[in-house]
Amino acid sequence: MPAPVSNRGFGPARHAELALLLEVAGTPKPGNVDRTRDLSALHFEQFLAGAVGSSEGLRLAERGASVGEAFETAVEGMSKQGGGNTQFGCLLLLVPLVKAAAEGDLSPEGVTGVAEATTIDDAVSFYRGFEHVDVAVGDPPEDAHDLDVRRGSGAESALRERELTLYDVMELSAERDANAREWTGGFARSFRAAKSILADEGPVTDRVSRAFVDLLTEEPDTLVVTNHGEKVAREVMARAAEVSDREEADALAAEFVAEGINPGTTADIVCAATFIALERGVPL
Amino acid sequence: MPAPVSNRGFGPARHAELALLLEVAGTPKPGNVDRTRDLSALHFEQFLAGAVGSSEGLRLAERGASVGEAFETAVEGMSKQGGGNTQFGCLLLLVPLVKAAAEGDLSPEGVTGVAEATTIDDAVSFYRGFEHVDVAVGDPPEDAHDLDVRRGSGAESALRERELTLYDVMELSAERDANAREWTGGFARSFRAAKSILADEGPVTDRVSRAFVDLLTEEPDTLVVTNHGEKVAREVMARAAEVSDREEADALAAEFVAEGINPGTTADIVCAATFIALERGVPL
Repeated sequence: MPAPVSNRGFGPARHAELALLLEVAGTPKPGNVDRTRDLSALHFEQFLAGAVGSSEGLRLAERGASVGEAFETAVEGMSKQGGGNTQFGCLLLLVPLVKAAAEGDLSPEGVTGVAEATTIDDAVSFYRGFEHVDVAVGDPPEDAHDLDVRRGSGAESALRERELTLYDVMELSAERDANAREWTGGFARSFRAAKSILADEGPVTDRVSRAFVDLLTEEPDTLVVTNHGEKVAREVMARAAEVSDREEADALAAEFVAEGINPGTTADIVCAATFIALERGVPL
Repeated sequence: MPAPVSNRGFGPARHAELALLLEVAGTPKPGNVDRTRDLSALHFEQFLAGAVGSSEGLRLAERGASVGEAFETAVEGMSKQGGGNTQFGCLLLLVPLVKAAAEGDLSPEGVTGVAEATTIDDAVSFYRGFEHVDVAVGDPPEDAHDLDVRRGSGAESALRERELTLYDVMELSAERDANAREWTGGFARSFRAAKSILADEGPVTDRVSRAFVDLLTEEPDTLVVTNHGEKVAREVMARAAEVSDREEADALAAEFVAEGINPGTTADIVCAATFIALERGVPL
């Protein structure tokens, strides 16, 4: 697909920062913080601070730093607000996409190239990222307790002994983590959702909302599985599939917030999609 | 007043960008775009893009560029969205404040020093800023038609002949422009509103909202005077003075939007105040 060039003259790092802002402003985004809803311990303004704080790490990615260094710097900057983890998953997707864009090939092949070129050092930096914020994650597989991300830099020796690159780590998680599956599957859902954002009409924040609901119908949200189990995650998909207009999406948003259901992984993917759409010229 | 140091580790440029975001997210901000209200031709997302686009110019200010160069660069970046003028007035206040903060003296004296040190070249750059966006301004005084800001760089020879620095230009406008009065009066309202934001409680976006309503009661808003005349601007002050809680502020917001009353200059000053509050450690 020939990519229309954005007329903003923003580089990829700035588009990524803007994607973080447009993602949280996309409304309604059932179960997530959006322009009209906060969660009890996570506020809209903390996402604004998280986006601005991420900018240095995103700029590093644009300028050719390694995925690991750029990601860890972005997460560290993001975490300088009181809400904790606002955009860890978004950044995990954005950093390789920014690098691919900066290298002139923002395509499934281009970003797969970036992902496959990651090193053991990148894996170590990724693990260190978990020391900056509490990230809700599931247990690792039986044979990989030494690779539990919650060990942070404590996992470094295991990563080095097993000679695992960041791409290898993503492969190990791909079965149970939708963001890892983006890494190992050419960011398929991100590119597909970007296409629907580009083909849609109206304010970008409305397009983000519709793309979010569509994504939510496709697969169980990883964060919902982690917090509530597979059954609830399947129900979330079914309930999203019943949404046919803005009013129903708003009603579902109120229900999910009340029930504590937070499909945060789906928000990560719509953020990645928004970045791609910005790079391809979606008008603001 | 001893300034508590922010624990975010953000530099002044990043705090200024965050102030732009927190200003637009401050809700309700009667008559302005806020988290729940758009104007017909000016959308929330365009302010997000304006803030991100401003960041390069703000960074120049932090790194010691002249006020004029930093301001023109920020305005040019801000204007790369379809809404037109989102944050011109905010940037006019933020740029000298960022420079003062970067020089280690974010005080009325420090920013007055920055303002008074501006040059004729800064004035020329300021005028060029008007070529990037349409800014609603009143007519210049009878004897100063050659200095009409709407002439953009066409006013350069007049500025050079009259040997006017940017500070001089602000002095000429101070009587009828509240932002120019900040420049020539030690940013008095910005510092006072920052104090009330710091002393207030709860989310910063709520504090911004309350500070906005307080500022609105103090003086006629310059943009309202420009668009609707002095009498309406005085009525706006009186109506703001009747607001005693969030519900009444929301009702006034609905009325002002319906009546096309947009107190944009007051939003500029609350943005400057938010920057000062961030530098002084308001928690997020």
